Amino acid sequence: MTSATTAAVTPAEHEALRRALVLAATEGFDLGPNPRVGCVLLDADGATIAEGLHRGAGTPHAEAAALANARDAVGPDALRGATAVVTLEPCAHTGRTGPCAQALLDAGIARVVYAQSDPNPVATGGGELLRAAGVDVVGGVLVDEALALNPVWSAAMELGRPFVTWKFAATLDGRTAAADGTSRWITSTASRADVHRLRAEVDTVLVGTGTVAADDPSLTVRDAPLRGPQPLRAVMGLRDVPTGARLATTGPDGAASLHLRTRDPRAALATLWEHDRRHVLLEGGATLAAAFWRAGLVDEVVAYVAPVLLGAGPAVVGDLGVDTITGAVRLEVVDVTVLTPDPVDGPGDPGPGETNVRLTLRPRKET
Amino acid sequence: MTSATTAAVTPAEHEALRRALVLAATEGFDLGPNPRVGCVLLDADGATIAEGLHRGAGTPHAEAAALANARDAVGPDALRGATAVVTLEPCAHTGRTGPCAQALLDAGIARVVYAQSDPNPVATGGGELLRAAGVDVVGGVLVDEALALNPVWSAAMELGRPFVTWKFAATLDGRTAAADGTSRWITSTASRADVHRLRAEVDTVLVGTGTVAADDPSLTVRDAPLRGPQPLRAVMGLRDVPTGARLATTGPDGAASLHLRTRDPRAALATLWEHDRRHVLLEGGATLAAAFWRAGLVDEVVAYVAPVLLGAGPAVVGDLGVDTITGAVRLEVVDVTVLTPDPVDGPGDPGPGETNVRLTLRPRKET
Repeated sequence: MTSATTAAVTPAEHEALRRALVLAATEGFDLGPNPRVGCVLLDADGATIAEGLHRGAGTPHAEAAALANARDAVGPDALRGATAVVTLEPCAHTGRTGPCAQALLDAGIARVVYAQSDPNPVATGGGELLRAAGVDVVGGVLVDEALALNPVWSAAMELGRPFVTWKFAATLDGRTAAADGTSRWITSTASRADVHRLRAEVDTVLVGTGTVAADDPSLTVRDAPLRGPQPLRAVMGLRDVPTGARLATTGPDGAASLHLRTRDPRAALATLWEHDRRHVLLEGGATLAAAFWRAGLVDEVVAYVAPVLLGAGPAVVGDLGVDTITGAVRLEVVDVTVLTPDPVDGPGDPGPGETNVRLTLRPRKET
Repeated sequence: MTSATTAAVTPAEHEALRRALVLAATEGFDLGPNPRVGCVLLDADGATIAEGLHRGAGTPHAEAAALANARDAVGPDALRGATAVVTLEPCAHTGRTGPCAQALLDAGIARVVYAQSDPNPVATGGGELLRAAGVDVVGGVLVDEALALNPVWSAAMELGRPFVTWKFAATLDGRTAAADGTSRWITSTASRADVHRLRAEVDTVLVGTGTVAADDPSLTVRDAPLRGPQPLRAVMGLRDVPTGARLATTGPDGAASLHLRTRDPRAALATLWEHDRRHVLLEGGATLAAAFWRAGLVDEVVAYVAPVLLGAGPAVVGDLGVDTITGAVRLEVVDVTVLTPDPVDGPGDPGPGETNVRLTLRPRKET
């Protein structure tokens, strides 16, 4: 559409983009529903004027942070004709902060180099906007590295709903509890600690009202470091959550709960999306898991397998509508990790040194 | 009982025992129901007179082989006052060959150093016999190394029945087939090839009449090198094996079949023991597996787990009589191996690059 001449990416810009990737990866912030982004501003000689990074929802975007740092350091005039190097396409969207593409234009930036195109349908278009205003724009540099900064966020944006990780813990024969419903403990303390680490990586934990009635779980992160607030504890289903349930009151660290009065996984995810949720850990029982699978709404599986046999008891997943082997749900194994045996017996521990196996899987792409 | 003075094991004897272990481990023989054994004969100066090893049922034992080699090489007189170094206690039993303890006495051997005590109840007592006759006897040297030569044979001898390895292949949710009974293929070609390798390591493959009726398996070793004859293909149960079944006729390489008309796992194993069987690979369905578990007759588990979900279908194992979590069958993980993805699609292959996971486990010792 535009005919701006686009110069090849210079070595200085490449180096600046690598630096922006490092800035974006800085630990210690609660990003909330936002992606990790880094930005470096270069003068006409390729020397760095200023840097910036995004520190989470409600705080300045990486470009705005870099522009502010530049104005503090060298004054606004130094930005005329400068180049902005960013890990993500500058946004064209007014959210809690203004659009970065416009801020770059206002500052007199003459050239923009970015890595990943913005997959967010409401924010995309920044590159186009800049180009239309006569800025020299190059996108798609070091895309894989940029994607690796925000794999779950990127997938969620493209899906237009939260990314769903289904976690289950089962025996070698696929049981999640004994015939009488008891399940403490099938897995080792190492596995259970790993589940807390997993919860700390998501923004939402989801179960069904059946699990609340049966187990009264607290679903909080307890044995792992939290980078932000406790994940939202969401309950899905038409039944009321009993007033005495752990999920009926605010948990430790202000852990919030939300009752989604629906049996439709898609509706539940839509509501969670409106609540700025990007990554849901599905921890419910066989019925809820089967509903998500049937709706095609599972993006990742984390399975904890304990070296235990029960011979009876609830299954991992309910009816998937699969009658014959050719209809089987086939997954791709991403990782297999042998979880270090428990060093000592804790209370209720199944025994010293129990080894569990964690499998991480993704649905197979249709070929 | 005897008061023979027992001199400490000399460096030359230690070295000879290490050499005997190497001899015993020689590949290329079909041992049948017998253990690997090596023997080295030393003169009074600790110099080697001759060596011998056992090459399988019906052939001379290692001691007899070494004595014969010595007589050929240096004549019988050189054996008077010599030392025999053996990986296993010399037998005191007349089977297809005479007792080795007596042969050593007849040859005039003055001292015997051995590693593992003979766990075979009908053959043990050789050390005692030699000691009573005035021979200097030392046992228990490098026992772990000797046990590692014949782990399954040693376990079977102590159990007084064949060692039982239960193999199953299942989905991530513990199904061995889809709801309509179809199961070709749940696992990858790499897993299926590994099952043939496993069959080649045992002397018996066991299924129930139900599996014969449902699947008509051939149970032969096809995709792995055979060191001896095809394993015996045993069928257990009261129903007749249909005359048209693959197991009703002799298979390739003369693969034999045996129908054990019992539902009692202990009786089945006793009959197999009488047929000189030491290692049974249990490949039957959930009912047969549960019967072996309930009888406490599973010594090892090899599980092939495919990254597949079915949501319904036959379970891995039937009723174990476990009602609550404290009664769970707990296993120890011996090995976890990620089986190399299939390089190419074969006919009926589930898809390119499917990764399976093999777990090897043992029942936990009661603590």
